Amino acid sequence: MSDLPSTGLQLRSLITSAGQLQLSLEETDVPPPGDDEVVVQVGAAPINPSDLGLLLGMADLSSAIQGGTAERPTITADIPAGPLATLGGRLDESMPVGNEGGGVVIAAGAGEEAQALLGKTVGVLGGAMYSEYRTLNVHQCLQMHDGVTATEAASCFVNPLTALGMVETMRMEDYSGLVHTAAASNLGQMLQKICLADDVPLVNVVRKPEQAQLLRDIGASYVCDSSQDSFTQDLTDAIAATGAYLAFDATGGGELASQILTAMEAAAVATASEYSRYGSTQHKQVYIYGGLDRSPTQLRRAFGMAWGIGGWLLTPFLQKAGREKSQALRQRVADEVRTTFASSYAGEISLAGALQLETLQIYAQQATGQKYLINPGA
Amino acid sequence: MSDLPSTGLQLRSLITSAGQLQLSLEETDVPPPGDDEVVVQVGAAPINPSDLGLLLGMADLSSAIQGGTAERPTITADIPAGPLATLGGRLDESMPVGNEGGGVVIAAGAGEEAQALLGKTVGVLGGAMYSEYRTLNVHQCLQMHDGVTATEAASCFVNPLTALGMVETMRMEDYSGLVHTAAASNLGQMLQKICLADDVPLVNVVRKPEQAQLLRDIGASYVCDSSQDSFTQDLTDAIAATGAYLAFDATGGGELASQILTAMEAAAVATASEYSRYGSTQHKQVYIYGGLDRSPTQLRRAFGMAWGIGGWLLTPFLQKAGREKSQALRQRVADEVRTTFASSYAGEISLAGALQLETLQIYAQQATGQKYLINPGA
Repeated sequence: MSDLPSTGLQLRSLITSAGQLQLSLEETDVPPPGDDEVVVQVGAAPINPSDLGLLLGMADLSSAIQGGTAERPTITADIPAGPLATLGGRLDESMPVGNEGGGVVIAAGAGEEAQALLGKTVGVLGGAMYSEYRTLNVHQCLQMHDGVTATEAASCFVNPLTALGMVETMRMEDYSGLVHTAAASNLGQMLQKICLADDVPLVNVVRKPEQAQLLRDIGASYVCDSSQDSFTQDLTDAIAATGAYLAFDATGGGELASQILTAMEAAAVATASEYSRYGSTQHKQVYIYGGLDRSPTQLRRAFGMAWGIGGWLLTPFLQKAGREKSQALRQRVADEVRTTFASSYAGEISLAGALQLETLQIYAQQATGQKYLINPGA
Repeated sequence: MSDLPSTGLQLRSLITSAGQLQLSLEETDVPPPGDDEVVVQVGAAPINPSDLGLLLGMADLSSAIQGGTAERPTITADIPAGPLATLGGRLDESMPVGNEGGGVVIAAGAGEEAQALLGKTVGVLGGAMYSEYRTLNVHQCLQMHDGVTATEAASCFVNPLTALGMVETMRMEDYSGLVHTAAASNLGQMLQKICLADDVPLVNVVRKPEQAQLLRDIGASYVCDSSQDSFTQDLTDAIAATGAYLAFDATGGGELASQILTAMEAAAVATASEYSRYGSTQHKQVYIYGGLDRSPTQLRRAFGMAWGIGGWLLTPFLQKAGREKSQALRQRVADEVRTTFASSYAGEISLAGALQLETLQIYAQQATGQKYLINPGA
């Protein structure tokens, strides 16, 4: 581990002001670590839905063209004018990609915390993780227990902290139960496990009977299947039974958020003691944290006046929660990385493999379930 | 003023479980005042948009039928099945109507505060104000300065405190400017006057050139007319110039809230120092406080992740603001009732006049501007 590489391959996404997406692998400097820094050899980095915006820039993938060589493939594609207009801040600037990953610390700065990580496997929330090597501040690294692999550490942050963040948000905003959509996802399964461990009532919303079964198999008490005729009534009953007036919605578009608020209102009215002309006084909140359905959100507003909808992102949540709470959540992930927070993947690919047309098409179409893992050393 | 009436006429709205709206005038007991209570002879009570839900219960007014006598008219109308299903809490219960009004205290309980109000003109937020007499707690009354009439005191609460509440909400939630829609309304004019006095940047959104002129005439610096082709750019420029990232929307339906959030995001991105993959970090908030457009709210979500939309109501705001702050706001209304908070009316009608078919049709169709005043003594 003593031969510190001076450069390494890195996946880059460039959008030109002429409206072209260019994906490539670039040889990039690996800076030697400062006192509080370490160099991580990246072993695995997932392609999360939250990486796709930066990676693909809303390109029209039907226009994508393969180029370059087998070792250094490239992909180019057109960006439609509408999305292009919103990308002003990143035009003509080559951007590294990859929110999180796992790897081994192969060099460390002189500082005590840095030295303590030498040789350890770490999970990293560092950006630019689709790289062979990353020089990182120690605080971007989460040390794994002995024996945990880079692959097991790869998804330590985005899904686990998002799931934990939902439960913490519930506590911070004085709710006592949660509704979650696209609930059979990797993240949804983590959330169900957390809620079981922490005794938090959780209402899972899924779209298919087999997803309902998957959640019941890991202990879910409340699963509402939107493909069933009884969905509205099921959801209302589950909310009335659990008092779950805070929802996290991964889909964003269409009428689901409105349906949830309407069911919450019906549950609140059913359990209220008197008529209020402006609807129930129970505050009802939906946070949209994903955009699986990119169509407009439609709100029918038949749910009184005590309601809110908003965007929810992990980073602002962690800033709001503060350093101590965030550290406690991270440590829980490290402690339960093989159980509560275990992830599964559709497959593992190399950096060059990530820049193949067929791969692009697959993960651009991914719904909630399976995701790919990039192994930069493969 | 010593002959305390034992009964008085009161306007009542009843919805039967069979789906019929019944409006009538009922002779109702006037309870003698307790120690902390006064009896107010109501001189004027406005028909606000916020009264119409309780008054009309979403009835189909094309089915309305006049009945009763000239002195005791009645109106009946059908309630469609959809709305009827949401009215469970009030079925078969005769409800008094009228959020606010003004009048003279004609009797007072033994308590010091009650005695101090005897003979005074007061503004009242008491409910059931479409009545000849109301027995009320002293804290529901706002004493006017000498010479102010019941008509001038009639609209002391709903519009003035809503307008003041918008500015206070801005301060409580750490914003530094406001966007307001349907801005040429009575309430919108009050808000503009408050913002001028308090040096708060205000972006007014209107639908017609003459409304823009009306606001400019009272000193508005920023007026964006949604009927103009340049609306989107005008709104973005005004938000960038003012830093107004909090909006209050009276319309609710359609795409206006989404347009405002999109303009806020464009303004935030234009003034931001670096690209953020999830959009700007500037939080953008729209509160919907009215429902002039009852169609669904459509959110195109092209405004990053730092955003929120929600319902806003006066009463929960006042509870959140606390007693001391609420009292200060009320006193400001009393002090400026003839200037900042002066209201105008389309006309004045008696209690019997309020139960005429032609009157009903008029105020059910009212947009933002003119409203009627009921004078129960007429």
